[in-house]
Amino acid sequence: MSPRAGRVVVLAGGIGGARLVDGLAAVLGPDALTIIVNTGDDFEHLGLWISPDVDTVMYTLAGLSDRERGWGLAGETFRAMEGVAKLGGPSWFGLGDRDLATHLVRTDRRRRGERLTDITASLSQAVGVAHHILPMSDSPRQTRLHLHDGRTLDFQQWLVGEHGAPAVRAVEYEGARGPTPEVLAAVTRAELVVLAPSNPYVSIDPILSLEGIRSIVDSKPTIALSPIVRGRAVKGPLAAMLRDVSSLAASAAGVLAHYGGLVDACVVEHGDASDIEGTPTFETSTIMGDRSDRARLAREVLAFAERTFA
Amino acid sequence: MSPRAGRVVVLAGGIGGARLVDGLAAVLGPDALTIIVNTGDDFEHLGLWISPDVDTVMYTLAGLSDRERGWGLAGETFRAMEGVAKLGGPSWFGLGDRDLATHLVRTDRRRRGERLTDITASLSQAVGVAHHILPMSDSPRQTRLHLHDGRTLDFQQWLVGEHGAPAVRAVEYEGARGPTPEVLAAVTRAELVVLAPSNPYVSIDPILSLEGIRSIVDSKPTIALSPIVRGRAVKGPLAAMLRDVSSLAASAAGVLAHYGGLVDACVVEHGDASDIEGTPTFETSTIMGDRSDRARLAREVLAFAERTFA
Repeated sequence: MSPRAGRVVVLAGGIGGARLVDGLAAVLGPDALTIIVNTGDDFEHLGLWISPDVDTVMYTLAGLSDRERGWGLAGETFRAMEGVAKLGGPSWFGLGDRDLATHLVRTDRRRRGERLTDITASLSQAVGVAHHILPMSDSPRQTRLHLHDGRTLDFQQWLVGEHGAPAVRAVEYEGARGPTPEVLAAVTRAELVVLAPSNPYVSIDPILSLEGIRSIVDSKPTIALSPIVRGRAVKGPLAAMLRDVSSLAASAAGVLAHYGGLVDACVVEHGDASDIEGTPTFETSTIMGDRSDRARLAREVLAFAERTFA
Repeated sequence: MSPRAGRVVVLAGGIGGARLVDGLAAVLGPDALTIIVNTGDDFEHLGLWISPDVDTVMYTLAGLSDRERGWGLAGETFRAMEGVAKLGGPSWFGLGDRDLATHLVRTDRRRRGERLTDITASLSQAVGVAHHILPMSDSPRQTRLHLHDGRTLDFQQWLVGEHGAPAVRAVEYEGARGPTPEVLAAVTRAELVVLAPSNPYVSIDPILSLEGIRSIVDSKPTIALSPIVRGRAVKGPLAAMLRDVSSLAASAAGVLAHYGGLVDACVVEHGDASDIEGTPTFETSTIMGDRSDRARLAREVLAFAERTFA
């Protein structure tokens, strides 16, 4: 298989997802790559509609994201949220001053009835992103975490509000099941689907849970990058979730087992292929540094896919 | 008359109003002074509920307001709104980053059903203001300007969006007519009503237009400070409005004529009393500088009221 124009689709969420997307965007033009982003973490905060994964992808592609923090904008200030804290408002979720502009404009346009898809296209263009970033849905579909302690929390409440500490028993997706027409069309015409090295439970599965998407992806050559590297999640709570939710090992093999046959080939860290059986696997350095390193990994993924699905 | 605890009520809006309130608050304790603030300029912008006059009074009393600009906070940054402009959002109304905190918290709490009166009390306390700031209404009541060119604009659209340039034909107040219970109680028990040197049309009249307020004020000793000084408005579009809306001179006498018998005594700039007939008038320096100067004017006003209404 040689991916032709418009025929690579990447499903992504979180910081690792955004970095792989950045690499793919460096080697594939806007006509050759479509980016589908999780919106299951979206939430309303202080009356603002926050789309964390969409913003992380958009800011990363625009070269504006903060490298150290991973989220938000480089050189950001936090005067508004410092003020909110002083006024006794909720301050558990950090929103930078420049980042607030995105949320204010998005929220205002949503209230006027615009689709998140169209708002994202316009905001992306405004920050100089040429690639198509498609939110998975225009309607709220939220990831809900059922905890071992009996509570049910939204993802951000759990991850940011409680530092991802309480053990998760099960993950559920609530709300509208329909993908956008753009997402459905992109997946349908895909010649290669790439699952970014994102958390399957809270970044990839919400997209796969949309009506029709999983079965279409199942019919396509699909390559996954493991978000588990040498037994640990590069960032975030995935290792504990594999164990607590699915009784799976924190390993590339565990991630593959979670995807349950959906994945036809995978890319893992050097040394992580040993316990993978029956799935073509490529070992390389999967920790992504700067943009050239992300592009290097993207090139390797695409070349491996070409060899595997030829 | 010697104003007793809780018995001075000042009606205010705009920057001159906030400065006189600051002076009164420096010489009268929270139990002796109640501040009623215009909300006719309130508007929704980018999904945020903005209460410009309430904030100007609150920030001024907290010692946080920007002296040069007159509005907003000292040492303010504008990164969020610079971002909004870059994203193609509306940027005609300046909102500082720290100021945004106020609007975010207020808007969020309003959406949860809290009254503007209670939110204002809590925000005031948070910024260290001990005096009672009462918004005139908890429900939208908006000042609408009918222009000579046939258009009708909200006040902020006209003042900020069009720099107050188009000539105004008539001023109207639209929306809920009820004052809050707190405002009604404060005016009812007032022993002295002070009309701050604010624009009558867009700051004082909206308060007087509320059900019952004008007739109660009419029954009280009422002293007005002229917002017109030597034929000019200290700040803002009042001189043109007196002419365009009411065919009145831009003078303290014109302002008195506008109030039409409601005012029992007035305080004007040195030399401005000459064309006032039949109303006890005190001449002094009415341009307010720092807080000690504002307190000096407040003391003079209260002393003059005491002599006049003894």
